[in-house]
Amino acid sequence: MSTCKQQPHAELLANRRPHRCKILLPDWSVCGFFLHSLTLTVEKKAMSPKITGELLRQLRQAMKNCKYFSEPIQAYIIPSGDAHQSEYIAPCDCRREFISGFDGSAGTAIVTEQHAAMWTDGRYFLQANQQMDNNWTLMKMGLKETPSQEDWLISVLPENSKVGVDPWIIAADQWKNMFKALSSAGHSLVAVQDNLIDAVWPDRPERPSTQLRSLGLDFTGISWQDKITTLRAKMSERKITWFVATALDEIAWLFNLRGADIEYNPVFFAYTIVGMNTIRFFVDLKRLSDPAMREHLQLDSPSKPELSIQTFPYESVYTELQAICAALGPKDKVWICDKASCALTQVIPKTHRSPIPYTPLCLGKAVKNATEIQGMKMAHIKDAVALCELFAWLEKEIPNGNVTEISAADKAEELRSQQKDFVGLSFPTISSVGPHGAIIHYRPLPETNRTLTVNEVYLIDSGAQYVDGTTDVTRTMHFGTPSAFEKECFTYVLKGHIAVSAAIFPNGTKGHLLDSFARAALWESGLDYLHGTGHGVGCFLNVHEGPCGISYKTFADEPLEAGMIVSDEPGYYEDGSFGIRLENVVLVVPAKPKYNYRNRGSLTFEPLTLVPIQVKMMNTELLTQKERDWVNEYHRKCREVVGAELERQGRQEALEWLIRETQLII
Amino acid sequence: MSTCKQQPHAELLANRRPHRCKILLPDWSVCGFFLHSLTLTVEKKAMSPKITGELLRQLRQAMKNCKYFSEPIQAYIIPSGDAHQSEYIAPCDCRREFISGFDGSAGTAIVTEQHAAMWTDGRYFLQANQQMDNNWTLMKMGLKETPSQEDWLISVLPENSKVGVDPWIIAADQWKNMFKALSSAGHSLVAVQDNLIDAVWPDRPERPSTQLRSLGLDFTGISWQDKITTLRAKMSERKITWFVATALDEIAWLFNLRGADIEYNPVFFAYTIVGMNTIRFFVDLKRLSDPAMREHLQLDSPSKPELSIQTFPYESVYTELQAICAALGPKDKVWICDKASCALTQVIPKTHRSPIPYTPLCLGKAVKNATEIQGMKMAHIKDAVALCELFAWLEKEIPNGNVTEISAADKAEELRSQQKDFVGLSFPTISSVGPHGAIIHYRPLPETNRTLTVNEVYLIDSGAQYVDGTTDVTRTMHFGTPSAFEKECFTYVLKGHIAVSAAIFPNGTKGHLLDSFARAALWESGLDYLHGTGHGVGCFLNVHEGPCGISYKTFADEPLEAGMIVSDEPGYYEDGSFGIRLENVVLVVPAKPKYNYRNRGSLTFEPLTLVPIQVKMMNTELLTQKERDWVNEYHRKCREVVGAELERQGRQEALEWLIRETQLII
Repeated sequence: MSTCKQQPHAELLANRRPHRCKILLPDWSVCGFFLHSLTLTVEKKAMSPKITGELLRQLRQAMKNCKYFSEPIQAYIIPSGDAHQSEYIAPCDCRREFISGFDGSAGTAIVTEQHAAMWTDGRYFLQANQQMDNNWTLMKMGLKETPSQEDWLISVLPENSKVGVDPWIIAADQWKNMFKALSSAGHSLVAVQDNLIDAVWPDRPERPSTQLRSLGLDFTGISWQDKITTLRAKMSERKITWFVATALDEIAWLFNLRGADIEYNPVFFAYTIVGMNTIRFFVDLKRLSDPAMREHLQLDSPSKPELSIQTFPYESVYTELQAICAALGPKDKVWICDKASCALTQVIPKTHRSPIPYTPLCLGKAVKNATEIQGMKMAHIKDAVALCELFAWLEKEIPNGNVTEISAADKAEELRSQQKDFVGLSFPTISSVGPHGAIIHYRPLPETNRTLTVNEVYLIDSGAQYVDGTTDVTRTMHFGTPSAFEKECFTYVLKGHIAVSAAIFPNGTKGHLLDSFARAALWESGLDYLHGTGHGVGCFLNVHEGPCGISYKTFADEPLEAGMIVSDEPGYYEDGSFGIRLENVVLVVPAKPKYNYRNRGSLTFEPLTLVPIQVKMMNTELLTQKERDWVNEYHRKCREVVGAELERQGRQEALEWLIRETQLII
Repeated sequence: MSTCKQQPHAELLANRRPHRCKILLPDWSVCGFFLHSLTLTVEKKAMSPKITGELLRQLRQAMKNCKYFSEPIQAYIIPSGDAHQSEYIAPCDCRREFISGFDGSAGTAIVTEQHAAMWTDGRYFLQANQQMDNNWTLMKMGLKETPSQEDWLISVLPENSKVGVDPWIIAADQWKNMFKALSSAGHSLVAVQDNLIDAVWPDRPERPSTQLRSLGLDFTGISWQDKITTLRAKMSERKITWFVATALDEIAWLFNLRGADIEYNPVFFAYTIVGMNTIRFFVDLKRLSDPAMREHLQLDSPSKPELSIQTFPYESVYTELQAICAALGPKDKVWICDKASCALTQVIPKTHRSPIPYTPLCLGKAVKNATEIQGMKMAHIKDAVALCELFAWLEKEIPNGNVTEISAADKAEELRSQQKDFVGLSFPTISSVGPHGAIIHYRPLPETNRTLTVNEVYLIDSGAQYVDGTTDVTRTMHFGTPSAFEKECFTYVLKGHIAVSAAIFPNGTKGHLLDSFARAALWESGLDYLHGTGHGVGCFLNVHEGPCGISYKTFADEPLEAGMIVSDEPGYYEDGSFGIRLENVVLVVPAKPKYNYRNRGSLTFEPLTLVPIQVKMMNTELLTQKERDWVNEYHRKCREVVGAELERQGRQEALEWLIRETQLII
């Protein structure tokens, strides 16, 4: 791949704000957030735009420089991602932000000889306009009059143009679509191996190489050797001889390793290629010098030759894959995810390439084993302890007028950090009061920070990484007296939350079939929310993971299976006024209804999140008896399980709060 | 296209049984029927297999005959369809049945030099085995060990083989997939213009050319001229210069014409190509000799030159399209459905081809105008009159032991035929008692005919074509005392039916998002049904039409819009015992809930079918108050609207039955 400049840049690292919010991979995450949220955008920084004239001049110079390719290119595409198609990215991969100044989580820049254009969606229109100078044209995605990138390129390019892109940061399926569109208009899409942004970015931060942490069987339940064996069994079943792993969370899961290369995501930069007898691991080799790490990976004394790991520098994956492909037999097939980088995908000759939407690692990781489930339960109990403390504290402090969105978020982090095996947050806390609650991805900044009062609804969506598990929970509270409308909306959201959580459905059901259950009560009153209902959650891994989810957008999601863990998070957002979201992380478990049609078996959900849902916000008259029973049973469990832990930890005030908040409703 | 042999074959036509059942286009229909129905197959005929040795010898001879192509082909694919990808087909198009003897509605035959294989799904395994002789291998689709057609071909063919197929009866998208798979294995897929089955089918029936019927504005609401103008506006909006219509129902709808070329479907064989100034209509020209028809189409005195229809023989569509394509300007684009035949699709050069999943005619036809809605309402009232009479008659006659599945179906047809503007049935009546009810596509035949008794559940799924509209209704009744389990299952199905029918949902919602509503009550008890919940219904057109539907299978369905008409038909099938299905045809109408989030507006359904739902089958204790209210309001409307018509028609016994069957439930 285009190698990274190795000059650290302390200042940039220090100023780096965790501006990626925990939202939205196009496939499995809570898709559709903000599709129509044009009015919701908040000013994230009171900033002046980045001055980009000189930078663009240098980039255009590079576009003509035959050092990079045989002929000049007329346009250069700068996507958002990294070489692993990660949702959150490291500072060294923030190329689109560097060239344009725009730091939203989604956007694609295209620079031609005359133009510089940025495609982003409704949540970022205002922000992009503020962060970009006059050299840039904002392309508002989702508006009818906005051309697609392909159409725009075709309209502005001279005949027979060459459009360049770094093949490492464009996914194979995206490359294919762009390639087709440009070819049909007489242009060509060309892979530019050296990244042209890096070429004009002298002080680009270095690629992070944080210390690796190995996890024992008490946390993972399955050794990496057994995971390799299972993977090979699946390969052999499908007559696959090689498998290329590129997603960082899959590699971390496979080897029972964690890193901290990307904020909030305990992953590390690496690739892996697994054959039937060999394992090649591509990573910064300095990270493997620790004896415990070498022992974990059995680098010096492998138990069996086929479980011996060969290590290579991170950057050599390309040449190694080339060497493997050069030696393929006529019937050899190589598995690679269809969302892997175009660069690696195209190394594999088409006749040997077997692209898959979800790799066996992705599917294996999604179904948690007994140890992981136990860990996730423990993590959620500790998380609930911290949140009960937070809410008890908020109840006491808010009337004094000293609590702000930021201080509440900080308090939540502080309380979580007191819990055992706390590692960090799993995404930036969404701490929003009143109208800010209606901005679904809101994150408080000094410029927007609002004080919590007894007059406004407060929404907090937060989570943490513990060594035993990952959490993600949203509660919406009122510390005074909510209005009838706020209660009505809250109750519809609660009904939707319960409808999903209590649903019984046949084995083999895909998550998207449950999405409407979350909306029915809102729809009946003419209301709705413009995001999906749930996403997969990793176990001490990414808070968003595939291949399952609950969304009205149908993507190639895999059927829900016992052991999978997803979020259940319907909401309602009244622009300029308040936001409501109720999120539990839930575990898919077998259900035992009265009948068992064709022996298919049934599934349902068990909440892992055990934090009281504020009764004050409910209009209990709108709840059915079944729904009231669900709330009571849920609160009984919160009190029993979290109460015991609060008692054990001697957190009396929080315990009292928990008991008050879990009284029976009738 | 491969021209049809024009020798009529009276005997075959006389013996032709309407064996296509009203089930299952892969895209929009109630998808998924029978996926796992291996145990459900019923012996449709007590027949001996067709002797095919000599026929196969002749076909293999033709495969080597250079009259048809430059080099011999090693395999020949015989799909089920016709050149218009119709769901139901005419006898002259039953080529797969002719060569194999297997007459199920779905199946693909492939003949190689050594093998003859038939792919079909679970509902037809038994039947195919009985109808095919030893020359054929049955490929059981849906079983893990069964290879796909592509994989099988690759496994049996010698290297560099040529596989032939008639490009007229393979859809463009299917061709593409097969082409890719074969190419990647070193074989090639070749279009054989002369159909090789026709070449060995001396007495092939001629293509039907029934009399055309023109419909006036009182039935259609919009003149064909206005439909052309609307179509052209859409073409111009998308910068499209030509549109090729190949689906028979779209052409019938466009010209406000109906035929009777295919049983149950009031369509006729034709093509149409519309340009911005010309209209080319390809049809057996004999059909246009009637002066009234010439007047309807303004063939002799068009009002405006751009509304002048040029007529051509049906067979000349290929050469005319070639001529049009030869004269295309560099920017000209041609719309064609991606499910159109490969033959016509490939006439259009790729750079000019703009394939679409649903044509503007398909979308226009789906949203019924006020006149069509009024017609559909009238048709459903007349249909309800006939069914009330039928059920009153059954109630009286069944205890005498003289009513069979066939005689009940015949009686239903007789009663329908007494209604004004009756044209024929809209599909073969499913009249099934006891265990036959669990066979979802059951159609009574003399060999299977069962007597209706007071001891078994009776399911009748039937419908008719009237000049003003098309009906499709299923009722499940018991004429004695149903068991507690039968009532329980019926009630879950009813709850599902109501959940869909009464659902309120935002404008823009796709039908597949409503499917789970129909299943939630069954799921809660561990039950389910293995078919979709609803399909689009034409207005005096096909009883199955796109582009909308309600199914757990997600296909590219279009959002529901006010004016669309779909069925709502959940069911439950207890193998070997009974079947339950409750089907109404429902109209999408605006809803007015309390709020109107982001001004999107809401929709709901209005039942067009007005036939009482048997209270005796309900366990009313399992119904919520809301559901009981829905039943009472539905029955009130049945009584009011259908009662008035029964009274007007002087059908006293049926009226009394209706009044008895629509008593309030509490």
